[in-house]
Amino acid sequence: MEMTRSGKRALAAALAALLASGAAWSADPPPKPSVADVLKMSKPSDWRPLDPDNTLYMEIPTGRVVIELAPVFAPNHAKNIKALVREHYFDGLAIIRSQDNWVVQWGEPDDVKTPRPIKTAQQTLKAEFTVPRANDKHFVQLKDKDGYAPQVGHSDGFPVGHDPKTGEAWLAHCYGMVGVGRDNDADSGGGTSLYAVIGHAPRHLDRNITVVGRVVAGMPLLSVLPRGTGPMGFYDKPEQYVPIKSIKVAADVPEAERSHLEVMRSEAPIYQAVIEAQRNRGGPWTKVPAGYIDLCNAPIPVRERK
Amino acid sequence: MEMTRSGKRALAAALAALLASGAAWSADPPPKPSVADVLKMSKPSDWRPLDPDNTLYMEIPTGRVVIELAPVFAPNHAKNIKALVREHYFDGLAIIRSQDNWVVQWGEPDDVKTPRPIKTAQQTLKAEFTVPRANDKHFVQLKDKDGYAPQVGHSDGFPVGHDPKTGEAWLAHCYGMVGVGRDNDADSGGGTSLYAVIGHAPRHLDRNITVVGRVVAGMPLLSVLPRGTGPMGFYDKPEQYVPIKSIKVAADVPEAERSHLEVMRSEAPIYQAVIEAQRNRGGPWTKVPAGYIDLCNAPIPVRERK
Repeated sequence: MEMTRSGKRALAAALAALLASGAAWSADPPPKPSVADVLKMSKPSDWRPLDPDNTLYMEIPTGRVVIELAPVFAPNHAKNIKALVREHYFDGLAIIRSQDNWVVQWGEPDDVKTPRPIKTAQQTLKAEFTVPRANDKHFVQLKDKDGYAPQVGHSDGFPVGHDPKTGEAWLAHCYGMVGVGRDNDADSGGGTSLYAVIGHAPRHLDRNITVVGRVVAGMPLLSVLPRGTGPMGFYDKPEQYVPIKSIKVAADVPEAERSHLEVMRSEAPIYQAVIEAQRNRGGPWTKVPAGYIDLCNAPIPVRERK
Repeated sequence: MEMTRSGKRALAAALAALLASGAAWSADPPPKPSVADVLKMSKPSDWRPLDPDNTLYMEIPTGRVVIELAPVFAPNHAKNIKALVREHYFDGLAIIRSQDNWVVQWGEPDDVKTPRPIKTAQQTLKAEFTVPRANDKHFVQLKDKDGYAPQVGHSDGFPVGHDPKTGEAWLAHCYGMVGVGRDNDADSGGGTSLYAVIGHAPRHLDRNITVVGRVVAGMPLLSVLPRGTGPMGFYDKPEQYVPIKSIKVAADVPEAERSHLEVMRSEAPIYQAVIEAQRNRGGPWTKVPAGYIDLCNAPIPVRERK
């Protein structure tokens, strides 16, 4: 449905000009590169490997879902979730909810008779809805704004919101973001119930839930799960549950069995070219470039290690 | 994950006050109703039945997808698609693409050897990316803004953008919106290839494609289709195609076999209460009301006929 083509030479010149200037992309020729064009020009130093100690592998019958935790934004929850994982809390539990255009959720069913015991981890933690902006040292602000946060941008590959007035920073609920389910009490979550966004970004959840990371690979394994027919998309028949074989911390998995993924450094200059290629799409297909990008339409590129 | 409760009496008082004043919702008590609370208070006159002559039923193996056409925004394409449907153009064709967080697309495979002949309909039409604002007589503007259009709001239940400077109005690419696939030539589409948005709203496609309507029922049948492993999510093996048993105009289907759905009138005062219930969520779960709503987070309610 979308195609972009550009003369390789003109593209290289255009991209070089952009990276040199660091300025906004010219609306005139030389031709604007596509995101794919920009990625082809990236250097190895533009990418970072996932940190094995903050990467989770969730193994379900259809394959592996790779989740990168964001300890900068939810330090205690990231630590607690790794503790739960390392005591095998999730192994043998299931995905229990799939609500269309909303979330897929996993953990222990609400109606379980004897709750699975927790050994070393905590059942609940104080909410980490936001952190002090000062903690977010890698924030790169988008030039575009939205109505959900005074400032939006990226930090180490995560979509984030900032409020200079309150001094808060938080992870934004974009597609693939992973959050901590809770009850009405803000401090009633701890990581035993997690969800991933599978639809249009529910940004109104920002600052109301502790967000702990994002799915960097395997979203299609979650997004296609049959929708639950119970209230809020919960599976109302246990046979509908999607079993979780295991969730492991990548660092605990033998090197040969790891997923070797790299995330584009959102603080790298080339990422500005990626954003601009999305704000004003090049190529013969686009007739009216948007001249704008919504935070959740700017996912950070992920690739297999070269 | 989200719950809201309110005392019925206080709720009725609050809602009555809102509907009387027509003003923005008070941030103070009486308690704010949830969307469900507001819907319970709606009158029959707040809803309109789908127009059978502008409603399509796409029958696939898992059930029926109901699509409401928007002739105000794409008169020629709506007419042509109905002509294609009535000459059974789609019957026996298939869903040929499912790209994660993007679109599901149906029609004739690109690599088909002998294209299916078209009898009375047109193969291609002049693009209808936008229409004159004057044609959009039912536009109700959201108080909130976004970066993709100078004005956004709803018209007869469809999400739309307006540009007072250019005098244009157009349908916005929200979840469930249906558009007309095309090649690089703006006038290369006609309705033989259609798609529905299954992910985060690709609003940068606005004004670049003719959008013809929206899926009002059956999105979960499309959103869970296995993702295609070919380029851009196309199914690369014919056995992956999801057969389309038929697409029919509701008016051509016997009354007893029709889906009897009603859409909330987006011009009805109560819809302002629905929007406000979404902008500032009530109930004990929400700690920080957003005070804003993105156009594509404000889907118009649809219900079975009472």
